[in-house]
Amino acid sequence: MSKELALIEALRALAPHPAARGLADDCAVLPFGGETLVLTHDMMVEGVHWLPGQDMADVAWKLVATNLSDLAAKGAEPVGVLLGFTLGEEDARFVAGLGEALQAFGVPLLGGDTVSANGPRSLGLTALGRATCSPVPSRSGSRPGDRLWLTGPVGAAMLGFEALRDGMTGDSAAFRRPTPRLEEGRALAPMATAMMDVSDGLLIDAARMAQASGVTFAIDSEAVPFPPALPASRRDEAMRWGDDYELLFTLPADANPPTAAHCIGVARAAMPSPVIVDGAVPHGNLGYMHD
Amino acid sequence: MSKELALIEALRALAPHPAARGLADDCAVLPFGGETLVLTHDMMVEGVHWLPGQDMADVAWKLVATNLSDLAAKGAEPVGVLLGFTLGEEDARFVAGLGEALQAFGVPLLGGDTVSANGPRSLGLTALGRATCSPVPSRSGSRPGDRLWLTGPVGAAMLGFEALRDGMTGDSAAFRRPTPRLEEGRALAPMATAMMDVSDGLLIDAARMAQASGVTFAIDSEAVPFPPALPASRRDEAMRWGDDYELLFTLPADANPPTAAHCIGVARAAMPSPVIVDGAVPHGNLGYMHD
Repeated sequence: MSKELALIEALRALAPHPAARGLADDCAVLPFGGETLVLTHDMMVEGVHWLPGQDMADVAWKLVATNLSDLAAKGAEPVGVLLGFTLGEEDARFVAGLGEALQAFGVPLLGGDTVSANGPRSLGLTALGRATCSPVPSRSGSRPGDRLWLTGPVGAAMLGFEALRDGMTGDSAAFRRPTPRLEEGRALAPMATAMMDVSDGLLIDAARMAQASGVTFAIDSEAVPFPPALPASRRDEAMRWGDDYELLFTLPADANPPTAAHCIGVARAAMPSPVIVDGAVPHGNLGYMHD
Repeated sequence: MSKELALIEALRALAPHPAARGLADDCAVLPFGGETLVLTHDMMVEGVHWLPGQDMADVAWKLVATNLSDLAAKGAEPVGVLLGFTLGEEDARFVAGLGEALQAFGVPLLGGDTVSANGPRSLGLTALGRATCSPVPSRSGSRPGDRLWLTGPVGAAMLGFEALRDGMTGDSAAFRRPTPRLEEGRALAPMATAMMDVSDGLLIDAARMAQASGVTFAIDSEAVPFPPALPASRRDEAMRWGDDYELLFTLPADANPPTAAHCIGVARAAMPSPVIVDGAVPHGNLGYMHD
C-alpha cells in the first residue's frame, strides 16, 4: 500500500463518517438544511502538479477546474470556492487566471487564507456544490451488464503537456485550461449508475470505479475517443495519462446518455483484474499513482 | 499595504460576493438549504506556524482548533472538516492528534487531499459549520457605547510557546492545544453586536474589529485578564501576542454576557487610532502582522 493510501486508511479509521468517502479524492456528500452539500478539496504543488515557470494564470485556472470537475462527477451545481494560497512570484497572474476561471464557470470566491513560505508553493482549493438530484451518483453503483461511457477524448492533456514542456507550437490548452464537464454531469447524474471524472488516467480511474462497484470493466480500445493529433501508436499511453477531466460513467444496458458520449465498454461480474482491455489484462501501471 | 493584503484586495475585487468577507481570515457566511452555512479555510506552514521538530499530533490539534475557533466566533456549530495534507515525517503522530481533536470537538473528517512535496510542509483545513442564530455576528456591528468583552486571558500561549521553544518545564499546552470557544460562541452569538476570535493578538484583532465597525475601542489594561504565571512587566507584550483563541466581542452597554467574560473596554466614536489603551495610542506593532 502506498504511503498516501496508508494515511488515507488511517484517517478513515479515525473518522468513519458516511461522507468520508471524500478522502480518496472523491467528494464528500452530506445533507444540510433541506438540500445536499457536495464538497471537495484538492491541492496542487509546484514541481508536482505544475511545471516550474508555468504561467500562474493557468495554474489558477487548473486549480479551479479540477475541483469543479469533482463536483461535475456528482452532478452538483457549484456554489463557491475557498482558496488556500502560498504567496510567491507572479501572484498577479494567479489572481488574473483565478478571476477568468471563476467567471467562466460562474462561481464566487467565498473565502480562504494566504500564507508566506519558502520552498515549493502549495495551493489548496475547497469547492462547494449543491446536489441537483438524489441520490448523488457514487463510484460504486455499476452493475454487471451496465455499459461504460466517456464524455470525450483522452490524451489531449498529454499532448498539451508535452507541447508546453518542450516549448513546441502544439496546442497546450487541454493541459493548461481543462474544462470541467459541469453541464454534462448534471444531465447524467439522474441516470448514471456510477460516475467519476478521469483525472489520473482512463484505465486507473476505470479500475477504481470497478473496484468500488465490485465489477470488472471490459474496455474496447477501438471505441475510446482520442484527439485527432494523437498518433495511433500512442493510444495505449493516452489511456494511462490523466488531466483530461472527461466524465466516466455507467448506464443500464438499455439506456442512452442525454449528452454526447462514447460507449467504450461494458461492466462484467468481477474478475481478478478490475479492468480488461480488448480481452486482456493491461500490463504495467494503469495511470498516475499517488505516492 | 502588505503583499498579503494587496493580494486579498485583488481577490476581493474579482469576486465581490457578499460572503467573500471570508478572505480577510473571517468566515464566509451563506444561505444553503434553508439554513446558513459558515465556512473557513486556514493554512499552517512548517517553520511559520509550528516549530521544526514539534510533535505533529499537536500541529494537527492546532490546525483543527484554530479553524473551529473561527466558527466559534460566528456562534456556529461545527459540521465537519476537509483536510489538505502534505505527506512527510511523523504522519502517524499527525493522524493521532487529528483523531484526538476531532473526537474532543465532536467533528467528523469529511474529506480532503494528500500530496507529496519537498520543502516545508503546508497543511490546510476547511471547517464547515451551521449557524445557530440569525443574523450571524460579524466584525462590523460594534457601536459607540457598546462594551468590549473578552472570554479569557491572553498571554498563556506566549508563555507556552517560550516553554516549548526553550525546552523548559513550563506548561506549553496553551500554545500546543488551544481550545476553540465553541459553547461560549453559541451562547454569545444572539446578543453580541460584533465578535471575533483573538488569533493574532488582542490589540491587533481589536483594531480590526474597530475598523470594520467604524469605532475606536478604549481598552483598560487593568481589566484585561492575564494568566497568573505572567509577570506584570510582560502584560503589554501579552496583548500583542496571538494564539490564545479567546473570543473578543461587544455587547450593548446594558447587557451582560451569558458566559464567563471580562469587560475590558468600551467602543467610542472613531478616532484616528482604532484602539487606545489606558487613554493613549499604543506604540509599535499591535500584534502579528501577516506579510
